[in-house]
Amino acid sequence: MADLCRIGIDTLGSETPTSEIVQGALDFARGHEECQLVFVGREDELRCVREFGHSVVPCEESISQYESLIGILRHKRNSSMKVGLQLVAASKIDAVVSTGDTGALMALSRQVIPMLPQFDRPSIIKRFDGKRGPVWMLDLGANIIRKLSLLVQFAQMGSAYAKAIGRLERPRISLLNIGSEARKGPQVLREVASMLSRTASLNFVGYTEADQLFDGTTDVVVADGFSGNVALKSIEGAIGISHYFIEGELRAAGLDDSELAISVAQRVRDKLSAQAYNGASLIGLNGIVVKSHGRTDRVGIGSALRLAKEEIKAGVPSFLKSFQFS
Amino acid sequence: MADLCRIGIDTLGSETPTSEIVQGALDFARGHEECQLVFVGREDELRCVREFGHSVVPCEESISQYESLIGILRHKRNSSMKVGLQLVAASKIDAVVSTGDTGALMALSRQVIPMLPQFDRPSIIKRFDGKRGPVWMLDLGANIIRKLSLLVQFAQMGSAYAKAIGRLERPRISLLNIGSEARKGPQVLREVASMLSRTASLNFVGYTEADQLFDGTTDVVVADGFSGNVALKSIEGAIGISHYFIEGELRAAGLDDSELAISVAQRVRDKLSAQAYNGASLIGLNGIVVKSHGRTDRVGIGSALRLAKEEIKAGVPSFLKSFQFS
Repeated sequence: MADLCRIGIDTLGSETPTSEIVQGALDFARGHEECQLVFVGREDELRCVREFGHSVVPCEESISQYESLIGILRHKRNSSMKVGLQLVAASKIDAVVSTGDTGALMALSRQVIPMLPQFDRPSIIKRFDGKRGPVWMLDLGANIIRKLSLLVQFAQMGSAYAKAIGRLERPRISLLNIGSEARKGPQVLREVASMLSRTASLNFVGYTEADQLFDGTTDVVVADGFSGNVALKSIEGAIGISHYFIEGELRAAGLDDSELAISVAQRVRDKLSAQAYNGASLIGLNGIVVKSHGRTDRVGIGSALRLAKEEIKAGVPSFLKSFQFS
Repeated sequence: MADLCRIGIDTLGSETPTSEIVQGALDFARGHEECQLVFVGREDELRCVREFGHSVVPCEESISQYESLIGILRHKRNSSMKVGLQLVAASKIDAVVSTGDTGALMALSRQVIPMLPQFDRPSIIKRFDGKRGPVWMLDLGANIIRKLSLLVQFAQMGSAYAKAIGRLERPRISLLNIGSEARKGPQVLREVASMLSRTASLNFVGYTEADQLFDGTTDVVVADGFSGNVALKSIEGAIGISHYFIEGELRAAGLDDSELAISVAQRVRDKLSAQAYNGASLIGLNGIVVKSHGRTDRVGIGSALRLAKEEIKAGVPSFLKSFQFS
């Protein structure tokens, strides 16, 4: 049973109903028998999962996105999110998945799980599917300050992460900017670029503009959390309007009842949705924390659990910990 | 002839070949007889346009995106971009369209065309087509600093612009942020929000996240030029990958030869492309300057010319000039 993956799921405090989270998790577990799930949340909503061999950690307190971070850190001592993170910190589970508020997850993760020694703050990383394979982007909203030392650490984290989980030998690292020419963008990005290009252990390839994200010219794109989050959500918005136009045009062409058109549109939708709604991870911590999209459905929960399992198998935190930069 | 629109076109210095620019412009002019075009560029490439009643201002010097702004401002005294802007400043034409480098266009515009008295710096604004109508976003890359006074001015410019060109009575103004809750984002955005909500002449409705851009909850989204440009290019990237997936799935379904499927896919493509590749405008100047996308085609040139014509008809600079904020 050395390969057993114990994954916790925070079932409270998101826009996704607990029943949908449970359904998505059970669907996932059916295809992944080596995964044992630990549901954190209200006993009465979770009782059914025991029938499938999973466990429940009862917990009543949830966190809403409208609460202040100080209030959450000081007064919410037994929220489902915090309990899930504590299970990771105590090695009772190998990873936790939460659909809750990103800011709260970031703040509580830092309170509960130690940072890896090389890094000052966690960062949020996510995979997108480009034309020629995966591309990872970080930070997607954990740190909104555009600061040299943080951006350099994100490049290191991202490089190690892409090696561990993407099995890339020398991931191509680039910096999100608003032009590829040297004079473009703020001064601090030029300083980061200069430092990254002098770091022998990193394969820094220069600036990436957001319209090149999917082109296969880079493996890891580094951004401050504000710009990264804007990019992520702009992609979500553009994908939403793409679905909207596709459906409108199928209707206009009288194809909205055609089985073939529906199945093609559905496959396009699935591929596009994966871009936006798959899980993202908090990295830089000595533990695995996966953030599922707040407005996800059962398919999204399955994606987040799959990501947690991949990170367990790849040993992400110990890989990042052992990684030396020069 | 009071309604004649005289529009200049800078035909050099972009990734779009002059022949494609000329073709797009002539296509546009055929449907807009009140528009008289003035082509700025190499005589030998432009001779043909005279046959159609348009004029040529001969000019050999082009600006590349790799030149330094200081070099452009000091030494490129007769570039096609600068000559086009000078024709606007001298009221010899009513608007100019350029496919050239954004940074150069911004710098030369400020050198050649006076600012409107209320504003410190020009901003780049662009219309997107949302689910319930147009939405404008600014700044898309003219000013990369996130500064209170500039963001407030962008809100004022954007509001006046949406009134003039969108004929909206009280445009809903919002601020791009990475969360809609009050605690999200950098401090300066909270200060801007506070100031905008106290400005009686503005209909400020709060924060917008980039995934809500197309939802019809706001008319004008205000951002610093770095974030705005990241949003714009992320949308372009996501639309590119949407096309890619649509084509792949049509091929996989054996529909890539079906006339109906091709025509539906083409209409989806056209609608999506309009999001990304229509023209954007520099506003805040006492003159009309439209930036066409650098990698545009003849259809994009037509869109940019149409936008220039709309701004001439709406009297954008004089509308912005007369606008009082309180």
